[in-house]
Amino acid sequence: MLDYQAPLRDMQFILEELAGLERIGELPGCEDALPDLVSAVLEEAGKFAAGVLAPLNPVGDQQGCRLKGERVVTPEGWQAAYDQFREAGWIGLSLPPEHGGQGLPKLVSSPVWEMWFSANMAFAMLPQLNVGQTEALTIAANEAQKATWLDKIVSGEWAATMNLTEPQAGSDLAATRMRAEPEGDDAYRLFGQKIFISYGEHELTPNIVHLVLARLPDAPPGVKGLSLFLVPKYLLDEQGEPGQRNDIRCIAIEHKMGIHGSPTCTLSYGDDGGALGYLVGEPHQGLATMFVMMNEARFNVGIQGLALGERAYQAALAYARERVQGRDIVTGEAGKAILTHPDVKRMLVSMRARLMAMRGLLYSAAGWFDLARHHPEAEAADKYRRYVDLLMPVAKGWCTEVGNDLCDEAIQVFGGMGFVEETGVAQLFRDARVITIYEGTTGIQANDLLGRKILREDAATLRELIADIRQTAGRLDGHEHLGDLAQPLHDLATLLDQSADWLLAHQADTAELYAGAVPLLHLLGIACGAWQMARLALAAEARRTAGDGDPDYLTGLSELARFYLATQAPQAHAHGHTLRHAGAVLSRFSEQAL
Amino acid sequence: MLDYQAPLRDMQFILEELAGLERIGELPGCEDALPDLVSAVLEEAGKFAAGVLAPLNPVGDQQGCRLKGERVVTPEGWQAAYDQFREAGWIGLSLPPEHGGQGLPKLVSSPVWEMWFSANMAFAMLPQLNVGQTEALTIAANEAQKATWLDKIVSGEWAATMNLTEPQAGSDLAATRMRAEPEGDDAYRLFGQKIFISYGEHELTPNIVHLVLARLPDAPPGVKGLSLFLVPKYLLDEQGEPGQRNDIRCIAIEHKMGIHGSPTCTLSYGDDGGALGYLVGEPHQGLATMFVMMNEARFNVGIQGLALGERAYQAALAYARERVQGRDIVTGEAGKAILTHPDVKRMLVSMRARLMAMRGLLYSAAGWFDLARHHPEAEAADKYRRYVDLLMPVAKGWCTEVGNDLCDEAIQVFGGMGFVEETGVAQLFRDARVITIYEGTTGIQANDLLGRKILREDAATLRELIADIRQTAGRLDGHEHLGDLAQPLHDLATLLDQSADWLLAHQADTAELYAGAVPLLHLLGIACGAWQMARLALAAEARRTAGDGDPDYLTGLSELARFYLATQAPQAHAHGHTLRHAGAVLSRFSEQAL
Repeated sequence: MLDYQAPLRDMQFILEELAGLERIGELPGCEDALPDLVSAVLEEAGKFAAGVLAPLNPVGDQQGCRLKGERVVTPEGWQAAYDQFREAGWIGLSLPPEHGGQGLPKLVSSPVWEMWFSANMAFAMLPQLNVGQTEALTIAANEAQKATWLDKIVSGEWAATMNLTEPQAGSDLAATRMRAEPEGDDAYRLFGQKIFISYGEHELTPNIVHLVLARLPDAPPGVKGLSLFLVPKYLLDEQGEPGQRNDIRCIAIEHKMGIHGSPTCTLSYGDDGGALGYLVGEPHQGLATMFVMMNEARFNVGIQGLALGERAYQAALAYARERVQGRDIVTGEAGKAILTHPDVKRMLVSMRARLMAMRGLLYSAAGWFDLARHHPEAEAADKYRRYVDLLMPVAKGWCTEVGNDLCDEAIQVFGGMGFVEETGVAQLFRDARVITIYEGTTGIQANDLLGRKILREDAATLRELIADIRQTAGRLDGHEHLGDLAQPLHDLATLLDQSADWLLAHQADTAELYAGAVPLLHLLGIACGAWQMARLALAAEARRTAGDGDPDYLTGLSELARFYLATQAPQAHAHGHTLRHAGAVLSRFSEQAL
Repeated sequence: MLDYQAPLRDMQFILEELAGLERIGELPGCEDALPDLVSAVLEEAGKFAAGVLAPLNPVGDQQGCRLKGERVVTPEGWQAAYDQFREAGWIGLSLPPEHGGQGLPKLVSSPVWEMWFSANMAFAMLPQLNVGQTEALTIAANEAQKATWLDKIVSGEWAATMNLTEPQAGSDLAATRMRAEPEGDDAYRLFGQKIFISYGEHELTPNIVHLVLARLPDAPPGVKGLSLFLVPKYLLDEQGEPGQRNDIRCIAIEHKMGIHGSPTCTLSYGDDGGALGYLVGEPHQGLATMFVMMNEARFNVGIQGLALGERAYQAALAYARERVQGRDIVTGEAGKAILTHPDVKRMLVSMRARLMAMRGLLYSAAGWFDLARHHPEAEAADKYRRYVDLLMPVAKGWCTEVGNDLCDEAIQVFGGMGFVEETGVAQLFRDARVITIYEGTTGIQANDLLGRKILREDAATLRELIADIRQTAGRLDGHEHLGDLAQPLHDLATLLDQSADWLLAHQADTAELYAGAVPLLHLLGIACGAWQMARLALAAEARRTAGDGDPDYLTGLSELARFYLATQAPQAHAHGHTLRHAGAVLSRFSEQAL
């Protein structure tokens, strides 16, 4: 079994030096995020992740979930772990205090979620849904609904789900067919089938609150005709407790390549007269609210990329330190661990460099999220909101792609032992394969980035971001220890500018343009990673010069940045070349020649 | 279930236009390889692959193999398929006629093996071992041994295995501990344990012939003390038929992520007095012979990369043509298949381009293999032997990495349906994960390429190859339809030359040098692929201009070459940058900072 230890030192360094923990703690509403409290939270979470959740990860994989009639049986230990998790108050960590949450900033909850996903992603998907649903209901539900449902969702007494997909409506929600018929008093009867519903049915909680996209009888076609409904598994009795079973059935669970511990359900609504549900927000405005929940989910899936990569890295590093094989290529000495082989070392350094780049980007984005929500000045808040919007598809799309690469590389470090299931790294690889797919595939993220986030505003926010990157590059110019990093970072900024110019100049050639969406997403991801790594190196050198911290650790961070630029920056330039040159070939390529 | 159709048109085109089928058919010993016969062989193999082997692929995955006591139970249908396969004479296709084979060139058998691996890799691993073992015994066994064993191995009446790995001896065979004690009359008693033995035990054949690396009592340490032994599961009686059971036990089979239909066995030799075996070749010379078998296996694993990629491509293309989702990004029209989305089309064109590049390289290498063996002029034969030697690690290392990428991309085309097991593409992805590991990991291939194949001869063969690439680029210069491909190919040749210069100049810095081995392997793989794609485009344009063939198909091939250069050539330059710049950072990077 794989061990897991929360990488507290790395997390703390990035929270403090890159994501501005101190500044976030000064924002109105974030005053609880004091350094000591944050450290204590991270340490406790690390213990829970390592001690309770991580040992259950292989159990979930091996046992999976079973459908018995219409009941879903989750793996052994899931119930006890969920009860402990809920009782410890972890679900409400970043949720509104008025509903029982602790109201800590997203910057603090992000590393904690990283730990849950590293330890046991299939398990952590369950409470993650409560967070997203709370965000959505907070924005769109009326006061009575909030009073009825939110406390129990924030505490985790009841579980939550998100019901979007139907067999004919996956990436394209416009094709949604589920219908809702009025039943008086804000109540509706729902009819139809939803698929791919994570934790759509289970008995870990006495109730499950489904948020469901459906069409009212007078709905216009397309996504502008989607309304959002809250549909509980059990209707509430007069005391507000789960009473009569609603007309929802789990008719199948998927047999998946990974995340076996998380039941993926097909739910049938209304086979027996209609499932009773309540409209959330205005009619036909459901998609916007669902997007709040989905954006929360997308950011968290980006964190899953980091988290699985971290777990895979820890496993690979431990194996590489322990496994003796071959001779030292320089000294010829036998009996050395494989970590001494240059190619194995290359894989591990490369993994760690990309982990730090992802962590830098994701935690920074979490900080921007808090700044957007809490910054007292509207203009500053707006800038951070635009940063979050621009980079959400990168956080999701790029970090999940990189997370997959890291799990793949970890198997390579294990060699043949990586391909057998007993070492556990194969599970990480199989689990990771879903993250570039669910909550919007990489292609969907890339289209969102290109169309809604860049072209729609003539790349305005992207240009602001590029200016920030240039400013960091400027701090490297002539730097005593890091001067060699300046030019590659300047070059990436220039590449981004040229790419933006190219995109704006080719807006008329839609097919050619969108053929470059995924290369663009990779390019921007790598460039943002390089920016964060440069900031990391600057912070590490500053601390080292000030004698503040372990000099080996700090020098290691600078070298990681150097390695990142030597290996990843050329990839960004390659993606830039592809962006500019492949679309034209592709758009005239005949489908018949495939 | 996934359909499979052998891509006969593509195979024929590459055999004829890139791999020189006609020329091979004129070599002494290859006269049977007449175009009509070759076409008939490919067509029959295609039918067998699609009709018999492909439908069993998911059965093997779902049922896997079971260990009952010391017996291994293979999946349902395996026995009948093997009997049919053997009776049809497929095993001996390229094997020596003096032992019952058909003696066709490797160029002809290579596409046939591609089909077997596409259809059912876990199954095809069994007869593949007979081919490798025949190659090894032909070279090293004495006449009596050949007479006793080879006919039955060539016919497939008996199965074959390759026993190298031990728990402490994986990539490092010098650590082999299995011992062999003389028992008189060329016989020996073997003692020890071998792991990861594919088809190490099963009952599909009445006997199994193991080739086993072990140490004689007087063996020097290291790889120069390894001898090769033939150890049958059943000792032969006086009629040469399987009689008494030998002292070999299957004590475990691995629980693997993929290739479930292929039992991966732990074999214990000599628990009851010693397993009787026969020395093959000279004492202490076993590794050289085993390398003959391993090289055969490595080339075939490269073909597995192509084969799994082809199957994944066919699955993804069929799904992309059938699955309706979203609107046409140009016309806004609904009800279109996802293939119309630029990003999905990008993935499929990219897959097909890389398939053709791999096929061009692998079939060309198969042709060089035949030329090396049969060319009447020693100098020419020698050149092709050197090409085979240089490019074997690329054929294995690069094609398996690309094959994995293609299976990954196929899942992405399927979206959520790719992550559920029922569509079958997840199996390809899981199966593929072993091919960059077994028969030498990508890192091992890359070290072989760099050390034994390039540095040891001061890059002499590499320079010859670069000259060939330049010659092809020269044919593109000023070409009416393909002139734009010239410069990128010239640039790749220059990149290869510069990389070779850099390697030779840095020979003293071993750690720095070998940190670049894998980037070098990718770089050379992509460049060879680009070379083959350029040759493909030249051949397609020549045929199109001559009015010989479907113009849409031929134009498609040229466009594939163009797309390959636009997307892959920049990756090669990125790897070149990494090769030159990352090693220095890496070699001074402290292991403590990981």
